[in-house]
Amino acid sequence: MKRDFLYDEIARKISNQIKSGLLQPGDRLPSIRTFSHEQGVSVNTVKRVFLELEAQSLIQSKPQSGYFVSPASYLKIPLTEVSKTSLGIDNVEPKELISRVYANMGKSDLTLFSIGIPSGNLLPLAKLKKELILATRALKEGGTEYEPIEGNLKLRRMIAIRSLAWGGKLQESDLVTTNGGMHALSLCLMALTKPGDTLALESPCYPGILQLAISLGLQVIEVATHPITGIDIESLKKIIPVIHVCLLVPNYNTPLGSCIPDSNKNEIVNLLSKHHIPIIEDDVYGDLYFGSTRPKCCKSYDTEGNVLWCSSISKTLAPGYRVGWIAPGKYKEQILKLKLVHAISSTSVVHEAVGNFLKSGRYDNHLRHLRSTLSDNFQHYAQTIASYFPEGTKISRPQGGLALWVEFNENIDTAELYEFALKHNISIAPGRMFTLQDQYNSCMRLCYGLPWNDELKFKLKQLGNFAKILDKKI
Amino acid sequence: MKRDFLYDEIARKISNQIKSGLLQPGDRLPSIRTFSHEQGVSVNTVKRVFLELEAQSLIQSKPQSGYFVSPASYLKIPLTEVSKTSLGIDNVEPKELISRVYANMGKSDLTLFSIGIPSGNLLPLAKLKKELILATRALKEGGTEYEPIEGNLKLRRMIAIRSLAWGGKLQESDLVTTNGGMHALSLCLMALTKPGDTLALESPCYPGILQLAISLGLQVIEVATHPITGIDIESLKKIIPVIHVCLLVPNYNTPLGSCIPDSNKNEIVNLLSKHHIPIIEDDVYGDLYFGSTRPKCCKSYDTEGNVLWCSSISKTLAPGYRVGWIAPGKYKEQILKLKLVHAISSTSVVHEAVGNFLKSGRYDNHLRHLRSTLSDNFQHYAQTIASYFPEGTKISRPQGGLALWVEFNENIDTAELYEFALKHNISIAPGRMFTLQDQYNSCMRLCYGLPWNDELKFKLKQLGNFAKILDKKI
Repeated sequence: MKRDFLYDEIARKISNQIKSGLLQPGDRLPSIRTFSHEQGVSVNTVKRVFLELEAQSLIQSKPQSGYFVSPASYLKIPLTEVSKTSLGIDNVEPKELISRVYANMGKSDLTLFSIGIPSGNLLPLAKLKKELILATRALKEGGTEYEPIEGNLKLRRMIAIRSLAWGGKLQESDLVTTNGGMHALSLCLMALTKPGDTLALESPCYPGILQLAISLGLQVIEVATHPITGIDIESLKKIIPVIHVCLLVPNYNTPLGSCIPDSNKNEIVNLLSKHHIPIIEDDVYGDLYFGSTRPKCCKSYDTEGNVLWCSSISKTLAPGYRVGWIAPGKYKEQILKLKLVHAISSTSVVHEAVGNFLKSGRYDNHLRHLRSTLSDNFQHYAQTIASYFPEGTKISRPQGGLALWVEFNENIDTAELYEFALKHNISIAPGRMFTLQDQYNSCMRLCYGLPWNDELKFKLKQLGNFAKILDKKI
Repeated sequence: MKRDFLYDEIARKISNQIKSGLLQPGDRLPSIRTFSHEQGVSVNTVKRVFLELEAQSLIQSKPQSGYFVSPASYLKIPLTEVSKTSLGIDNVEPKELISRVYANMGKSDLTLFSIGIPSGNLLPLAKLKKELILATRALKEGGTEYEPIEGNLKLRRMIAIRSLAWGGKLQESDLVTTNGGMHALSLCLMALTKPGDTLALESPCYPGILQLAISLGLQVIEVATHPITGIDIESLKKIIPVIHVCLLVPNYNTPLGSCIPDSNKNEIVNLLSKHHIPIIEDDVYGDLYFGSTRPKCCKSYDTEGNVLWCSSISKTLAPGYRVGWIAPGKYKEQILKLKLVHAISSTSVVHEAVGNFLKSGRYDNHLRHLRSTLSDNFQHYAQTIASYFPEGTKISRPQGGLALWVEFNENIDTAELYEFALKHNISIAPGRMFTLQDQYNSCMRLCYGLPWNDELKFKLKQLGNFAKILDKKI
């Protein structure tokens, strides 16, 4: 799939220098321009080399400072396995497990490694409150009126402007607002499927998406997914004859944190469009990149209106506000109709406040801080896991987002670890939640959207110890 | 169906006195106690007599003043016809018509007789804004957090307390909040039906409910409905073998404004429960009674958890806030799961503000004013229609709610009237919107939730003149 052998060769050379210790953790790499000059290659080739190394977690970019070799400790931890494609038969929803884990949401006495949203401590609460109060005062009827069916105009305009950063080129009229990200996915699936249809997803996959698919009577095929580069295109090709819709979280999906390389996104869009299979793209984590550049979206490559790009502010700003949106491409009429019928309108005043917040420029400021914190948090987690988790523990290499996938050796049952940890006020998300198949029983998702401090470190260390106890080989 | 012959006899006697002119419009009736004493019957019998006469629009109660004979002019207008049960085959959704009428929502240059919510002028905007600002300041994380899955506790507690007024006896744990009333109905239908199932509805019916049913792939049977007493029980009995679910708007449904007598509600609940057919009860207009007493609900008679009682504040307080709820009876688990999967949470801060507003006691104050205004508005509409609409025009007799059903002679096509009126900046809701059958083409719904004034009267008069022009017999 790699067409440019030159950049691949240079990337492998640097990778070997890092792994052999020639380049040390924290070492600064030459600037893109210097490197281009030194190696006698184009600036674009160097950029691709650095992106590739970043995707492999070997280097990391620091805004305004350049590229550095990543802290080394977690590099010794093996990468989690590439998942396998399921046949999509014998799907069994882990209902009871999910209910138990979700029931912990909002319990303030627990350390919620299981939650998939950023902690309130990481959000610009004072500024959000101010915007909400201003909007309440400013709106003609205090937001008691229904919105126009497409949703708040200011919000749609800001999302359209922001889409330029990832090659979206959206107009406000391309967008429809929703009551959060899950509502967006729900509308898309209702518009595109009927019970019995088959849906392709990444594996492992966010439990909410699996449950949504089941609730709509869909058959689910979980497709082989690489922990760094996301869904495997060859595996996707094989199932094309049997699928009706594909739902992807291309950028930093949960639980893996994988990111589909932009060239693969292009290939996937062309492939599925050719076969008239719509792509629902869930981009809720797209703004949470650790590197220097926001990744593109499948929508960036969509020339036929075949991609329904969905996102929200729930993972970046205010989960409880319920503000999401869809750029539904050629399916706009169906989406508008379903929105009207199932929801009528969103909460006008809150959508107005978020529109204003985005317009104020505060969102980008906030995102810069949040990204930097999440990136640091991941490093802390990885180092703690390297030091205190059982030998043989594998982790994914998120280059953005909020979550990390942990794979223990098969002695350790994470449903058991869940119960063990809960007795000590720690909640984790066991791997079985992220699939409809009997797999991932030794895996778990850890969210690093909690503020890092000594207590959190202690809890994570404790969790590692519990896992060691369960590891019968010890 | 009337079991108490004594109250029926007395009611008929008074009714004849009104119709014969012995009792004049505006005449005050004796107090319940005096009347009981005079006639030598119990206070309860007199109460039933007055409720019956009120339901027939012959008398009206004014809070703190007693009962009066209704203004007479509209009593001369004939009552609209009782609808017929459809077979539920050949359902055709009037998509294009609905889209055109809904597209007028929010256009400030139009007189929106077509809209089904109270005008902002009738809402306590300043107090609502204050509550929203207070809630934004008071909530620990400014409402950025998800709510517990059942929804805001304060709000559920207040709804439970209010349920005592209609014999609901709900606990806070019996309730699940939703993003408005349509979201509540959407969750209920998703929980109880699969595509191909058959749903029984009143006829004519709110277009949003028809569209929701179609979007979920349901077959719809529209059941014969009386403009005063609502769904016809004998007609309902006949279709029991073929229906899976029944969705009723027992109190002041739109467009008729009919209200199922409480004894009929009891009978319907027993009948459908015996046959294991769940009842989705949409009670969004229940608090908008013009008389002295709030009507009961089907839920008041539900001993088996077979009634899913749904309501919202969208018709009484703040449509754009998106605050609704369900008391789902024995279907709570399914509803909770669907809410989590399709919506995750409601907008925390707005639900908190509404909970506080209800707690403050301001809601009842507001409702008293709103009911009085709506009742007066209906009288104004009826009098204007009596004076300026074509001869032979029939109207329904809402004893609550926001809407009135108008039936012209069959020369007048209301789709044509819609186009005519729109050119003069008046929007109406043509009858065909309220059915999936080819019927009601000479009917329309008029909303009287707009503030009454000379301009509105002029517009209504204009509308009557347009209808006269279309009436080819003139």
